[in-house]
Amino acid sequence: MILPVDDPDDPRIAEFVSVRERDLVGRRGRYIAEGEVVLRLAASRPDHRLRALLLSERGARGLADLLPGLDAPVYVARQAVMDAIVGFPIHRGMLGLVEPPPAPDPAALLAGLAPEARVVGLLGITNHDNVGGIFRNAAAFGAAAILLDAACCDPLYRKAIRVSVGASLIVPFARVADGADMLRRLDAAGFSVRALSPSGAMRLSDYRPAGRTAVLFGTEGPGLPADLLAATPTLSIPMAPGFDSLNVATTSGIVLHHLAAR
Amino acid sequence: MILPVDDPDDPRIAEFVSVRERDLVGRRGRYIAEGEVVLRLAASRPDHRLRALLLSERGARGLADLLPGLDAPVYVARQAVMDAIVGFPIHRGMLGLVEPPPAPDPAALLAGLAPEARVVGLLGITNHDNVGGIFRNAAAFGAAAILLDAACCDPLYRKAIRVSVGASLIVPFARVADGADMLRRLDAAGFSVRALSPSGAMRLSDYRPAGRTAVLFGTEGPGLPADLLAATPTLSIPMAPGFDSLNVATTSGIVLHHLAAR
Repeated sequence: MILPVDDPDDPRIAEFVSVRERDLVGRRGRYIAEGEVVLRLAASRPDHRLRALLLSERGARGLADLLPGLDAPVYVARQAVMDAIVGFPIHRGMLGLVEPPPAPDPAALLAGLAPEARVVGLLGITNHDNVGGIFRNAAAFGAAAILLDAACCDPLYRKAIRVSVGASLIVPFARVADGADMLRRLDAAGFSVRALSPSGAMRLSDYRPAGRTAVLFGTEGPGLPADLLAATPTLSIPMAPGFDSLNVATTSGIVLHHLAAR
Repeated sequence: MILPVDDPDDPRIAEFVSVRERDLVGRRGRYIAEGEVVLRLAASRPDHRLRALLLSERGARGLADLLPGLDAPVYVARQAVMDAIVGFPIHRGMLGLVEPPPAPDPAALLAGLAPEARVVGLLGITNHDNVGGIFRNAAAFGAAAILLDAACCDPLYRKAIRVSVGASLIVPFARVADGADMLRRLDAAGFSVRALSPSGAMRLSDYRPAGRTAVLFGTEGPGLPADLLAATPTLSIPMAPGFDSLNVATTSGIVLHHLAAR
């Protein structure tokens, strides 16, 4: 259903007004899919429902093959009107409002995984680039799920989705309360858990995973909490003297590559 | 030499005016060091010369131990004046104008490296986050040098330095003309060269480096040029079916970790 929009104040497209400001207050369980790759991915996921599209005329041409099959209103505006609606020049001219599946129960998610499943646990990771990068790596290396504590930012935040190249829509994830809750649930599901730490007891390259395996990552500065490190076998990535600094998303790529290569 | 500045139009601090716009036109062989970590690093490098500092009052307090030993003017402004000079709210209140050492000749740089040196070669990498991330990984895993073709962006661009956490000031780098020039110079210096490619002949995890080793990285989309891939043994990082997408900085971390762990 193609619906022309000429007025940036049209109430039908209120959900797309001032996208960046709206990002900050949240969208009550919906997310914004931006650009062709993410929009096509969202449309292809049976568990994600496209609720509305806002496209520039050029954007509508780029998705022409997709639009007839959609059960959602498709608002099409001139580029200048679309820029005025979203609040910045949106060159790619493609936005979708999407309803993701309900957040899974962490216990049910873990229980359904394969005997050799790899799971990533994130604690206190509040940077959207890092969360998006970790999801991208998890998808690339076939991780089965990601657990996030309550302090982590939302993987379905617009920028996190973009950095993940859509992996936030692919890799199942669930929230847990905190590190203790995460450890308890992983243990209950039979996972062998390792925590990344600069002072880890075993080098990552010496680690041979077996069975269900989870690896936990904390923030770049403070790292994982001391009580969690005390309760979990630790892995380290040796670095050059005087420069022991790795980005946490890069670290997740190194770890997941190691796990996938075994 | 502490010099108060009250007027954003003071001609003495012209080099710090409108930092972002000035980034785009370049600084004739100088660079901007931003924030405490990078500024202290620049001050500690004997081959980098601090030419001027612009600090907020709080910034000056944060560097109080460093200032007496500096042979450069230190301009100190109130936060509002500093914001007006640089053109955005600069919360950390610390900027330095620094002269790096002359760019080394690539042949001389390579000739001076150790028998087991690891070198990174970059082709067509124009994104400052990626170049900064690759330098950070190179420093963390002890790579001896980085070669960049003419298309790569400047590792001493402000954002690249910030993302590198200062590694752009630590890891020696040199420019070459293009991929053919890079291969010729690495070959002349006795380097065994490998190129990263999604369709690479050997899995990275099976690769055992020996002697001087260089690994080449191209852009995420098009990858390395076909003629270069035809002339160089290739390595691949196997990924999940349907999601063969890794960030190039993350890829460099995975590769350099593998080389360092052998």
